[in-house]
Amino acid sequence: MILEKINEINDIKHIPSSEYDDLAKEIRAFIVESVSRTGGHLASNLGSVELTMALHLAFNLPKDKIIWDVGHQSYTHKILTGRKDQFDTMRQYGGISGFPKRAESPCDVFDTGHSSTSISAGLGMVYARDLAGDNYSVVSVIGDGSMTGGMVYEAINNAGRLKKNFIIVLNDNEMSISENVGGISQHLNSIRIDSGYNQLKKGVSKALSSIPIAGSGLNNTVKRSKDGIRQVLIQDHLIFENMGILCIGPVNGHNVKDMVRIFKEAKRYEGAVIVHVMTTKGKGYKPAENNPAAYHGVDPFDIVTGKPIRTKTVRSYTDTFSNVICSLADTNPKVVAITAAMKDGTGLKKFAKLYPSRFFDVGIAEEHAVTFAAGLAAGGMKPVVAVYSSFMQRAYDQIVHDVALQKLPVVLAVDRAGIVGADGATHQGIFDIAYLSGIPNMTVMAPKNRYEMKKMMEFAVNEYDGPIAIRYPRGDAFGGMKEIQEPIELGKSELISEGDPDSKIAILALGTMVKTAVDATADLSVKPRIINMRFAAPLDEACIREVAEKYENIICMEEGIISGGFCEHVENVLTELDYKGTIRHVAVPKRFIEHGCAELLKKKIGLDADSVRELILSLSK
Amino acid sequence: MILEKINEINDIKHIPSSEYDDLAKEIRAFIVESVSRTGGHLASNLGSVELTMALHLAFNLPKDKIIWDVGHQSYTHKILTGRKDQFDTMRQYGGISGFPKRAESPCDVFDTGHSSTSISAGLGMVYARDLAGDNYSVVSVIGDGSMTGGMVYEAINNAGRLKKNFIIVLNDNEMSISENVGGISQHLNSIRIDSGYNQLKKGVSKALSSIPIAGSGLNNTVKRSKDGIRQVLIQDHLIFENMGILCIGPVNGHNVKDMVRIFKEAKRYEGAVIVHVMTTKGKGYKPAENNPAAYHGVDPFDIVTGKPIRTKTVRSYTDTFSNVICSLADTNPKVVAITAAMKDGTGLKKFAKLYPSRFFDVGIAEEHAVTFAAGLAAGGMKPVVAVYSSFMQRAYDQIVHDVALQKLPVVLAVDRAGIVGADGATHQGIFDIAYLSGIPNMTVMAPKNRYEMKKMMEFAVNEYDGPIAIRYPRGDAFGGMKEIQEPIELGKSELISEGDPDSKIAILALGTMVKTAVDATADLSVKPRIINMRFAAPLDEACIREVAEKYENIICMEEGIISGGFCEHVENVLTELDYKGTIRHVAVPKRFIEHGCAELLKKKIGLDADSVRELILSLSK
Repeated sequence: MILEKINEINDIKHIPSSEYDDLAKEIRAFIVESVSRTGGHLASNLGSVELTMALHLAFNLPKDKIIWDVGHQSYTHKILTGRKDQFDTMRQYGGISGFPKRAESPCDVFDTGHSSTSISAGLGMVYARDLAGDNYSVVSVIGDGSMTGGMVYEAINNAGRLKKNFIIVLNDNEMSISENVGGISQHLNSIRIDSGYNQLKKGVSKALSSIPIAGSGLNNTVKRSKDGIRQVLIQDHLIFENMGILCIGPVNGHNVKDMVRIFKEAKRYEGAVIVHVMTTKGKGYKPAENNPAAYHGVDPFDIVTGKPIRTKTVRSYTDTFSNVICSLADTNPKVVAITAAMKDGTGLKKFAKLYPSRFFDVGIAEEHAVTFAAGLAAGGMKPVVAVYSSFMQRAYDQIVHDVALQKLPVVLAVDRAGIVGADGATHQGIFDIAYLSGIPNMTVMAPKNRYEMKKMMEFAVNEYDGPIAIRYPRGDAFGGMKEIQEPIELGKSELISEGDPDSKIAILALGTMVKTAVDATADLSVKPRIINMRFAAPLDEACIREVAEKYENIICMEEGIISGGFCEHVENVLTELDYKGTIRHVAVPKRFIEHGCAELLKKKIGLDADSVRELILSLSK
Repeated sequence: MILEKINEINDIKHIPSSEYDDLAKEIRAFIVESVSRTGGHLASNLGSVELTMALHLAFNLPKDKIIWDVGHQSYTHKILTGRKDQFDTMRQYGGISGFPKRAESPCDVFDTGHSSTSISAGLGMVYARDLAGDNYSVVSVIGDGSMTGGMVYEAINNAGRLKKNFIIVLNDNEMSISENVGGISQHLNSIRIDSGYNQLKKGVSKALSSIPIAGSGLNNTVKRSKDGIRQVLIQDHLIFENMGILCIGPVNGHNVKDMVRIFKEAKRYEGAVIVHVMTTKGKGYKPAENNPAAYHGVDPFDIVTGKPIRTKTVRSYTDTFSNVICSLADTNPKVVAITAAMKDGTGLKKFAKLYPSRFFDVGIAEEHAVTFAAGLAAGGMKPVVAVYSSFMQRAYDQIVHDVALQKLPVVLAVDRAGIVGADGATHQGIFDIAYLSGIPNMTVMAPKNRYEMKKMMEFAVNEYDGPIAIRYPRGDAFGGMKEIQEPIELGKSELISEGDPDSKIAILALGTMVKTAVDATADLSVKPRIINMRFAAPLDEACIREVAEKYENIICMEEGIISGGFCEHVENVLTELDYKGTIRHVAVPKRFIEHGCAELLKKKIGLDADSVRELILSLSK
């Protein structure tokens, strides 16, 4: 085993180049084996094994800085920087993260998780380096999928002026999480198709005797001078060239030696340079190679069959969303659906198939997604934007400025809201209640179970005529309380249980917390009143008033951050009412929530039934 | 006067083409005269007079839809759609807005104010049109400055696939509010330089017998067929062409007849088409033409001299920021400053001149600005990002994900925070306290006067090592209370006045509200205790506890929206403390605040001293 020799940073530099291919194979086997047990990101990591090896060989870590865009492709980087033995703990509470973390290693120089940030961050480090008079390389590694995010363009726009070395590695695997969309994808396709000797026929400014092409003996063709690098530019990189950025490639992203030579050349260029590397997602593990989208992020699976170990039986909120939006679209021709490279994850695959002309995957472009939806709404349509909670943050201004201000009937389907678990701090959907419910004109709902999820979607799409969000969590949807189905009415709560006449406690719960409240009170001898608040905005003030009059203790509950969320809004209403009783809240504390099993995390932060029961008992004393 | 004949939508269509030039002159004179009295946006409106006339002539309003990016160039549009007689009321309370407003006219189809939204919104309308089987044109008019915003790229990326007509007018005036920056600007420059007959020499795919060039007899050169339009493509538009978008131009943006013909051609193309129009900002009014940046947004001015009528005497918070960041940079070489096309407005002009290598104007690109700053901070620098409050909203996710999560020492200088006045709903800085103070690890300060502003900047830059924001309002900085200068300490408040021993009221005020509290209590016989809270996060909980123990009534005050802001956070602390007294808040109500004089608006929403005095008196009863 060559991998046994890889225990510390830069150990790879002692491996003879003849063993690179074998090492790559061993790393792949290690990743497949690890992820099959812990779950995690697979296809992207299998695609970037040789690329990461080449980066570690060509650069000097931790002095040189590598920034991993999104960061879900950093497993090989973790293996090569002394974290191999911790892979058993990956994505588990207290273990290593599935993303780069500055706290984990000096080789992780910038935390990532959301897409399209690496060029901006890298450019900042470049200027910091030069202002301090330091001398190291800064390398931003970005996938072609991330190139659909507008930030990248803003960053490249600014990198165009650069007179100092900055290396951008475009890891082009011909697909992002969903298939790549739009013009930039077409543009990259044209690079792919036109690359190689075909270019020569076009008669670019200089006659090139040979240029690097994917899959052939690249390195021999690169001239060993600054001018040599200039020469490898090909016409279709004009989009970057016009912005003053040198382009090299396409380069075979599975040939370590070729890439090392190219990277060493790139280090010498004074300016921004893009090294365009071609890789295959899922490479080396057939199931992933054949269906990389399905193996983007996986639960524990059987290596032989490629099938998940735990077969899913319970329906998720995403499943409910997937079904209900299709049936709504069936009867309402105004319904259109938009997502931002999350077609599969948000459950819009079925909709896309049934209503292709009414489905829009805009790429990793949440800002555009929301304003595009606002335009559709202004044109008379009923757009539903399905995006994960933590990514919807990207469109905060667009929700304020383009949707809420104009009261446009855009439906935001906020998936993965609340504690998501293993992906950790960058992916927890803890802010959406706060940032959405604080916006004027914005209605924010959260369902208690999957039946209510359906009703809320129907309300949002067919009954309500204004900006409205529905937030719902990842994973299994609660299927209980089927019998409690009050019709949805704007800003009206729903009584879950009257509670015992002698109880002095009322619980105002939002979304998932309704079930938690019911579970928490199941064994109590004196049962509190439980109300499903349904709306984080507008609040059911009449209900709050009534509860304030009757109860000495009020508990507010939400699966969202306390600061600026539902609980604080309720407290504000109670304050206005001069409520003199005791108010307690159950909410995510004001801190970033690390990775780990969602159930465990909820326990740690007091969002589980046991913690709530204790709170109730402490109030009953 | 030809302008007298323009009273309703489409009246311009009855004006003979021989009178277009005279009408343009009259419109310019009208705009100059109006803006000289009311203040408003000048240079951009003078630049787009003929462009707007041509759009109104070539298209049929209100059936056809014109979306004005940013919207500050829509004055001619307002004149041509029956609002000429309301220009006296522009930007004043109850009067017409300085931006497009759907509520004002059926010809205003999408409200704008923030940059770079028009292509996304327009694309949405295009799809809405085609799904409904309607037949109208959608035209997005966007300036070259707005082209630095990433959203535009996301939108163009999606427009590339389009098989239906969508017209994008690129109003290229060779400058945005500050000078244009980066690669895209360079790219547009290359178009400008290379345009015209020089193109022919390059040997594009087809030999073009003639192409439209700015300043010459354009219209004669456009072939009257679909293929004809294709032919006018010039090679340097390849950036858009590669994305599947047809480009026409550059076209002289001051020749109405030429533009009308080009627009009529563009209407026939099945796909996205960019009409690249060249205009001169400030055209027709010499002072504005010579210095368009100074005449971007203006206060009332003397037409003959071009000088403002009210000469500024009081220092603004921006002035204080401008000075203090320079002196901080003088002693601390790590200080760098970043803005997003707001160099003049944020007071960074002086810094840029003194420390050019440490100054970064990234263009209209707030997302990049913040993550770039995070990169600089990760590289050891002390970046200060100066952006207006309402635009900082764009970078919410970047502040959460790239700054706060990593606890990076980025200083956010949030200018124009609070009620800004005449620019209205899109520009009021009412959300920043809520969206910033809700983020874990983020410190949020607001100064009571300009001396504290200076101290807070010194604290943020030289003493504090983490994410920190200072929010301060537009206009005159309060220069009183110079004697109250407690040293700044993280999360610690400052006592302004003890109050009378028999007072039962304590006021916890943030930022500008400290002065309002003092003014409100000046005449009272029994004076409440007044505390300058300084920090919206972290809160001074010890102070709140002390106040809760001693006072029966607590008033919280902030110049920000109530939902999720400082007051709700304080109420949450008081709730935790089981405070049984009365709590009242003075904050911006949860609604969008219209345009008008800032003082008047504050009165309307109860943020003035009189309203606060009444509140205090009502509690004293």
